[in-house]
Amino acid sequence: MGNKPDIDALLERFAEGNVTAAARLISVIENGGEEAERVLDRIFAQTSNAYRVGFTGPPGAGKSSLLYRLTRIFREEGRRIAVIAVDPTSPFSGGALLGDRIRMQSLSEDTEIFVRSLASRGSLGGISNCTDEVCDLMDAFGKDLILVETVGVGQSELEIAEKAHTVVVVLVPESGDGIQAMKAGLMEIGDIFVMNKCDHSDAELAALEIEDTLKLKNIPAGGWKPRVVLTSAREETGIDDLLRAIGEHHTYLQDKGLFRKKRKQILFSRVRRAVMDKLEQKLRNSETVRDLIDRRMKEVYDGKLSPYQVVRELERIVKID
Amino acid sequence: MGNKPDIDALLERFAEGNVTAAARLISVIENGGEEAERVLDRIFAQTSNAYRVGFTGPPGAGKSSLLYRLTRIFREEGRRIAVIAVDPTSPFSGGALLGDRIRMQSLSEDTEIFVRSLASRGSLGGISNCTDEVCDLMDAFGKDLILVETVGVGQSELEIAEKAHTVVVVLVPESGDGIQAMKAGLMEIGDIFVMNKCDHSDAELAALEIEDTLKLKNIPAGGWKPRVVLTSAREETGIDDLLRAIGEHHTYLQDKGLFRKKRKQILFSRVRRAVMDKLEQKLRNSETVRDLIDRRMKEVYDGKLSPYQVVRELERIVKID
Repeated sequence: MGNKPDIDALLERFAEGNVTAAARLISVIENGGEEAERVLDRIFAQTSNAYRVGFTGPPGAGKSSLLYRLTRIFREEGRRIAVIAVDPTSPFSGGALLGDRIRMQSLSEDTEIFVRSLASRGSLGGISNCTDEVCDLMDAFGKDLILVETVGVGQSELEIAEKAHTVVVVLVPESGDGIQAMKAGLMEIGDIFVMNKCDHSDAELAALEIEDTLKLKNIPAGGWKPRVVLTSAREETGIDDLLRAIGEHHTYLQDKGLFRKKRKQILFSRVRRAVMDKLEQKLRNSETVRDLIDRRMKEVYDGKLSPYQVVRELERIVKID
Repeated sequence: MGNKPDIDALLERFAEGNVTAAARLISVIENGGEEAERVLDRIFAQTSNAYRVGFTGPPGAGKSSLLYRLTRIFREEGRRIAVIAVDPTSPFSGGALLGDRIRMQSLSEDTEIFVRSLASRGSLGGISNCTDEVCDLMDAFGKDLILVETVGVGQSELEIAEKAHTVVVVLVPESGDGIQAMKAGLMEIGDIFVMNKCDHSDAELAALEIEDTLKLKNIPAGGWKPRVVLTSAREETGIDDLLRAIGEHHTYLQDKGLFRKKRKQILFSRVRRAVMDKLEQKLRNSETVRDLIDRRMKEVYDGKLSPYQVVRELERIVKID
């Protein structure tokens, strides 16, 4: 019993386009467990092919302001938009200056735009465990454009590349050595590079640097050549160029049949991850495993047994038919 | 046959204190597989209780320069030191300015100091999969002090807290909003906070900010109160204060019996991680699993089956005795 009838009711209202129900279903998904799976099983058939665009880059690069501008324009074009922020420093997540936050929140007052921030796994952000699933929910909710904001630190920048059709890397000219190194990772995953705050004197030089680095990339014939765009979100310059670049990448994906291929990759990596999560849970819940660990780890702590001997023993307990 | 006799020979020379053999064994560990396990099984009984100190913080905070200064002093005190860098932007890894790099390399010419950089998992660094194991090797090699440098981005800062007895968080006053957010994660794991480049005008204010934030922490009676130290690695100021803080934390750990407790935690989390890695491998190698995925994923791609139905099916294939 418990919450189950509640979820059915939520799904019903969700199917009718009720925003509150959608928001509550996201919480169900975030909480995980059987309830989450039930929701995801039910909505999966309704997911089609919403276009997922990831925005990543160092904290403070202006990703949120850029998203705000883009969202307003996409909205005027009649797109049905969801904005998912997985960045604790994002104004969408309440992590930034009050002024920004209020501006972003004004988006959510437009009931046609769904704005939601997700709790991130690490304290530093990166990407939430259920970003894919929440994107699916928004897809099933009838959104055709899903914008995901993540902070590009650690391994998270690679994860967004596994989850989005198009990756926009947002950088700022003022970044020092550290950001240079960061770029190394970001270089590999960006379809579009935005040099934001282009009113800064070093912006053009920094954009040229990125273009030079991109030239070193081995792009196969007919492959996508990453675009570099100069913007200033505050002064609304370059936003059209960015929109054009996103449009071009979208067309490219469709022309090459990559849209569906990407979707397959997303689903496959999700299954793999979910299976591993389940197995970890299964191991944790197994009494045999717990007993063995209790017994053997004592010997390991005393230096009598190598950890890898325990690992091999545990491995033998797990059987795959 | 193959490399096996070679590893025995390496282990023999390693036991005699041969540095080249130690370096080659690290490569064996980095490459993983059976050979790595064999090495780790063999050296495990020789690991005792080397003191492991992790240094983390944003790229460019000056972790390497600080490590360089500390290492020279520890060396004069007769400590047997290993420096393990898992930061692609670190001069130890060859990622920084040539001058720094040469200075750091001069350390390795001192045969009593073992310096090694490890390939990191993400493009951005963080921590290597085998940091623990390489620390063990250094421990078995007779090192009593192991300094690990990681870049504090993403989830990696939490990982270093699982691997080191003492965590030193290195920050710089010039950091903006992004770093503020970063601090939120770093605040939780630091035993010692270093405000480096303290010749900067904002350094004292920044250090006070950290102290204020630390006051919000709920420290149990008799618990460790994190220290905040102002340093300038280039001008060699504050290094003594940092050394004292490290010494105090070391004493604290020993007095409270936490040294051994930490070691247990390290070993336990390693076993858990290794088991999961093995299971993932086992799943990947299983024909039953591959067949099922091939068949079912087609239905998922066509929207006929939810990914979670496949996950549940896969889960049933795995049995734990």
